[in-house]
Amino acid sequence: MKKIKIAQITWQPDKDSSIPIYQQIVQYIRNNISNGEWPVGTRLPSQRDLARLFKVNRSTITSAIDELTSYGIISGNSGAGTEVISNTWSLFLPPVTDWNKFISAGFFQENNSIVQTINKLEFEPDLIRLGTGEIDPRLFPRKRWQKTLHTLETKITSLGYLEPLGLLALRKSLAKHLNDRGFEIEPDNILITSGSLQALQLISASLLQQDSTVFTEAPTYLKSLHLFQSMGMNLSGIPMDESGLQYWKIPINNGDMKNVLYTIPTNQNPSGITMSQERRLALLKFCLDKQLPIIEDGAYQELCFEGSSPQTLKNLDKNDMVIYLGTASKTLAPGLRIGWVVASKPIVRRLGDVKMQIDYGASSLSQWALSEFIDNGFYDEYLDCLRKELKSRRDRALNSLTKYFSKFATWNVPSGGFYIWLTFKNKIKIEAFFEQAINLGILLNPGDIYDFKHDHSLRLSFAYVTGDEFEASIKKLSEILDK
Amino acid sequence: MKKIKIAQITWQPDKDSSIPIYQQIVQYIRNNISNGEWPVGTRLPSQRDLARLFKVNRSTITSAIDELTSYGIISGNSGAGTEVISNTWSLFLPPVTDWNKFISAGFFQENNSIVQTINKLEFEPDLIRLGTGEIDPRLFPRKRWQKTLHTLETKITSLGYLEPLGLLALRKSLAKHLNDRGFEIEPDNILITSGSLQALQLISASLLQQDSTVFTEAPTYLKSLHLFQSMGMNLSGIPMDESGLQYWKIPINNGDMKNVLYTIPTNQNPSGITMSQERRLALLKFCLDKQLPIIEDGAYQELCFEGSSPQTLKNLDKNDMVIYLGTASKTLAPGLRIGWVVASKPIVRRLGDVKMQIDYGASSLSQWALSEFIDNGFYDEYLDCLRKELKSRRDRALNSLTKYFSKFATWNVPSGGFYIWLTFKNKIKIEAFFEQAINLGILLNPGDIYDFKHDHSLRLSFAYVTGDEFEASIKKLSEILDK
Repeated sequence: MKKIKIAQITWQPDKDSSIPIYQQIVQYIRNNISNGEWPVGTRLPSQRDLARLFKVNRSTITSAIDELTSYGIISGNSGAGTEVISNTWSLFLPPVTDWNKFISAGFFQENNSIVQTINKLEFEPDLIRLGTGEIDPRLFPRKRWQKTLHTLETKITSLGYLEPLGLLALRKSLAKHLNDRGFEIEPDNILITSGSLQALQLISASLLQQDSTVFTEAPTYLKSLHLFQSMGMNLSGIPMDESGLQYWKIPINNGDMKNVLYTIPTNQNPSGITMSQERRLALLKFCLDKQLPIIEDGAYQELCFEGSSPQTLKNLDKNDMVIYLGTASKTLAPGLRIGWVVASKPIVRRLGDVKMQIDYGASSLSQWALSEFIDNGFYDEYLDCLRKELKSRRDRALNSLTKYFSKFATWNVPSGGFYIWLTFKNKIKIEAFFEQAINLGILLNPGDIYDFKHDHSLRLSFAYVTGDEFEASIKKLSEILDK
Repeated sequence: MKKIKIAQITWQPDKDSSIPIYQQIVQYIRNNISNGEWPVGTRLPSQRDLARLFKVNRSTITSAIDELTSYGIISGNSGAGTEVISNTWSLFLPPVTDWNKFISAGFFQENNSIVQTINKLEFEPDLIRLGTGEIDPRLFPRKRWQKTLHTLETKITSLGYLEPLGLLALRKSLAKHLNDRGFEIEPDNILITSGSLQALQLISASLLQQDSTVFTEAPTYLKSLHLFQSMGMNLSGIPMDESGLQYWKIPINNGDMKNVLYTIPTNQNPSGITMSQERRLALLKFCLDKQLPIIEDGAYQELCFEGSSPQTLKNLDKNDMVIYLGTASKTLAPGLRIGWVVASKPIVRRLGDVKMQIDYGASSLSQWALSEFIDNGFYDEYLDCLRKELKSRRDRALNSLTKYFSKFATWNVPSGGFYIWLTFKNKIKIEAFFEQAINLGILLNPGDIYDFKHDHSLRLSFAYVTGDEFEASIKKLSEILDK
């Protein structure tokens, strides 16, 4: 019979340390396993004995054991005794003491807990999602999509690796689509990415520096992303007024040459604000003077309800100051994972080289499908329908707010996109409100995941729910507030 | 009329510096533009005048101007005079003096020049690609694919974001497929990635440290990837014999706990070697003792020609020491960009969290398509056909080599996969041979992009070309060697 080794313990946690005691215990056990003292199969004393040996409460032991179990380092079977079950990959999981090294080294931070909760609950089918920045799946153009896939059945004869910039057919479709909207570009000015988030990653990894500052609107959805911070960059929020970003408040000196402006000038996420033409021109002049390059996120550019869309910064820019990001995620289907970068050819080539080192390009099946969808005119037809539907949903949403929320809050009136930014008149406990809403089956996006200072706002979205669903939810929420 | 500013130059390059003179000029001009001295529109003196002012040859000026033009910093119109056209993004492109900071910070290195040449020429339609690690597009299962897309026409009702681990339907399909082959896993042990390269990126970014060493077979295709090196890790090659990696040569101490072994035990790329069962068991024991976690790349696992495939390390591992990588790229279609990570649930969850921060998941269209393709039995049927075809191509390839190359080289006989590793008996100038082959319309993969020491080998692949094409190319190459 195999001899069972029992872990020998003489160490005790330091109760004066700033490190939580359960965390010290996790680290102690981890270290004993990683230094080979306790090989796989070693039996740990019972939780009761551990509490005695470490001179701590039973609940502290439970926390430590739970954490080690969640990493897969020890078996959670507390009845028959806890055993060391892994001494390799699992040991790489606990937060290590030199975690800062990881972060500053371009490694990834975990998302904050409210963002993690939202990410998780977004896959609960029964919740009404009142803040989700995604098109209602019920609006997916099924018929047009069926026809598109049908054409592809014979068109796709193989699915090999694609050239570094992405499928030429798609880059041609997009160049035409964008040139019809004021761009002056060729297919080689376009890089296809796996969504806009990847575009930001490529720009960070190949053009920015670790100590770069990314200036952006406050509030901004970037704050909930952690992409830039994970890569060691700073995020600095710049206030907005109804005409958009107040560029003159950007704290920049001439010749810094390492910072960058990220902006969503049209139907901004989460504020819904669209930058005026005058502000756009002034911003460009400012950035030219200050040598501040611009990332323009055009995710909601084609979702303006009244009249034509404003000119993009990219179209107004004559000096290659702007890298423009587009995406199919906010208009058609996030699951395609297709975005596009529009920039000067040298920039596009550099980003393409880096992309090839990261994932060899986006799905060619997705690229074929989108190209086909654009070329046969479905994309334009569909966008027309979508704008009408979103406008009607916006109007319903504004009516519901007026009816139920006038006494509690104020909000903006967006001229396009998905979002209404709502601010409570009185300070409310937003985390508690978030929890109460979940109990009512409503998932909210609290403003503090977007804003730089703690605030009392919500990002509401009329894109994911119908007017009826929006009204019913707002009514329920007003009843919470009444109490 | 707008006043044209002419650049004033009093500086001259330092001819004693170790930095090439043209590079000093590039840096000087870049600096003058970035510090605002020469704003956009500034006219540069003619190349003749620049040569005089800098006291250098005209050709040095041409090199500098060409480089600055390639970045989009100045206009290349040397007739009417060269002008500064961008003072923002383009200035981020030239190699900066603190490039090392980028590299050590997890930023991406450019690929080496021979790899860049190969990447570029792989999109030239007329070249015979004798080293390409990709299935011949003519073998793409068009009929089965058509049927798959046809089913999807009605099955796909929307294409939203997917859960962090990837489409559940696909994870179920893969779990069943893998469990039929000896795995014992659930769908939650699987993370869908945008190809295996991304899986390596995720593992590096979330589990490894900057100074980790990645041990791997020598030769290895990782050497041409730069992924690990770009993230500040070391790559260390371990020799192989006919039974696979000689694990006892891995220079590791107990308790290092930051290094990792990357191995392709079955039909290794590029050597074609398959590790014996005995070696696998011994390797696992060694790694358990040394606490060396394993990344097992199973890209060619299902492409064994004789009998059944050997057991994976993952199946033999009882201690979660192995993270297994699978992919559809080497069997069905690289353009799907679908790979999968198989690991313990805590590891899979962590990698999934990081993936959500990088690109929000792989294409759901690709995931639906692959799931459907597996579920209706097409994948297994197709793999049967593919193995037969590859075996026949391998036999033809070996015959061709025996006929034309016996006096020049030796090679291994792979029992599966794509590759024959060929080593010349006499030292030949491999770069020159590579160039001569291109002139004959043949693209080769020289061994030095795989091997750690400069060598005289080639990675030949029988996957991308027919037996006839292989023979005709080998004949032509033998004629070069005869000369």
